[in-house]
Amino acid sequence: MPAGAAPTRETHTPQTLLRIAVEVFNERGYDGTSMEHLSRAAGITKSSIYHHVRGKEELLRRAVDHALEGLFAVLEEPDALRGRAVDRLEYVVRRTVEVLVERLPYVTLLLRVRGNTDTEVRALERRREFDQRVTELLRRAVADGDLRSDVDPRLATRLVFGMVNSVAEWYRPRMGDEGAADDPAGAEAIARAVTLTAFAGLRAGGR
Amino acid sequence: MPAGAAPTRETHTPQTLLRIAVEVFNERGYDGTSMEHLSRAAGITKSSIYHHVRGKEELLRRAVDHALEGLFAVLEEPDALRGRAVDRLEYVVRRTVEVLVERLPYVTLLLRVRGNTDTEVRALERRREFDQRVTELLRRAVADGDLRSDVDPRLATRLVFGMVNSVAEWYRPRMGDEGAADDPAGAEAIARAVTLTAFAGLRAGGR
Repeated sequence: MPAGAAPTRETHTPQTLLRIAVEVFNERGYDGTSMEHLSRAAGITKSSIYHHVRGKEELLRRAVDHALEGLFAVLEEPDALRGRAVDRLEYVVRRTVEVLVERLPYVTLLLRVRGNTDTEVRALERRREFDQRVTELLRRAVADGDLRSDVDPRLATRLVFGMVNSVAEWYRPRMGDEGAADDPAGAEAIARAVTLTAFAGLRAGGR
Repeated sequence: MPAGAAPTRETHTPQTLLRIAVEVFNERGYDGTSMEHLSRAAGITKSSIYHHVRGKEELLRRAVDHALEGLFAVLEEPDALRGRAVDRLEYVVRRTVEVLVERLPYVTLLLRVRGNTDTEVRALERRREFDQRVTELLRRAVADGDLRSDVDPRLATRLVFGMVNSVAEWYRPRMGDEGAADDPAGAEAIARAVTLTAFAGLRAGGR
């Protein structure tokens, strides 16, 4: 063994370790996961994990931050900043679905966070902040006369995200073990279906 | 103590015991709930619980059956059986939201079921059966030319139920501790918002 190498069976970068931790968190729940579980799943000793991170909460923080950065970045994209509020809103919803699919395990973990640790409390606050930014766009689109005014904007935001977030419950990428049966459409087709349903509605003749 | 009475601090009917069990299951998760937790929450001894039920799985079964009976009953209501498929579908979606709100803790529990026991596996099968009945209605409405044909019916069903089921994540009845802030609208208004969004879309000018 070369000098300085840790006595591990596998080598991990911070990224590969994080990916495994997120898998275990999603499978066992964050509260139900011990450092022992993480050590076994990663194939390295607990002290090797402590070489990378201070503990499991740091892994949770990095994971939810990865999800949140992806979501908040959408709000800064040019098409989210320019044009009519209704089009910006539709763009944000579509891109949110795409980020959810691209970062599926990270966003799934974010959506399951319940607020028992500081990291979880902060993640919930950031989610609420994201929702509020979207509600604000929705309010402007209603004021512009582009969205119907007979559905409360906060309720509309909740319903649209209910639809968006539900994708995390059933979407499995075509490469996964659960295969094609769960993948009737790619990420883009799902994003398109979400925006069509939410903005134009399922009835024939909608735009 | 009258002869034959159980040495309990509180008296329960099967219904009140079930209601408490559902609360505990939703709070701790079914897997994380022991008979000891149930005994403490109900304020009766474990043996008094065994007087009512064979074990916690029977309580789970009764709870998810209560949710499933409510949902399946909707499919047998006159407006779900007569008329154009699109109207029957819209009726079923609206009534599903209402049942979800009326039986909130029971449906919440049903939606969290993950399939570790026979009861859970059966509950998941019944949920799938319900979804399939709705997808079938949706297919007919597309065939009638009443629903858009450019969203896959199975995907559309998932998205609509994503919206419907998300209500269980945030809806708290006005009577609850979390009060009016979480109750921007009654059950009827939520059901109306769901059907308007899903069928007519949020854009102004939708029917």
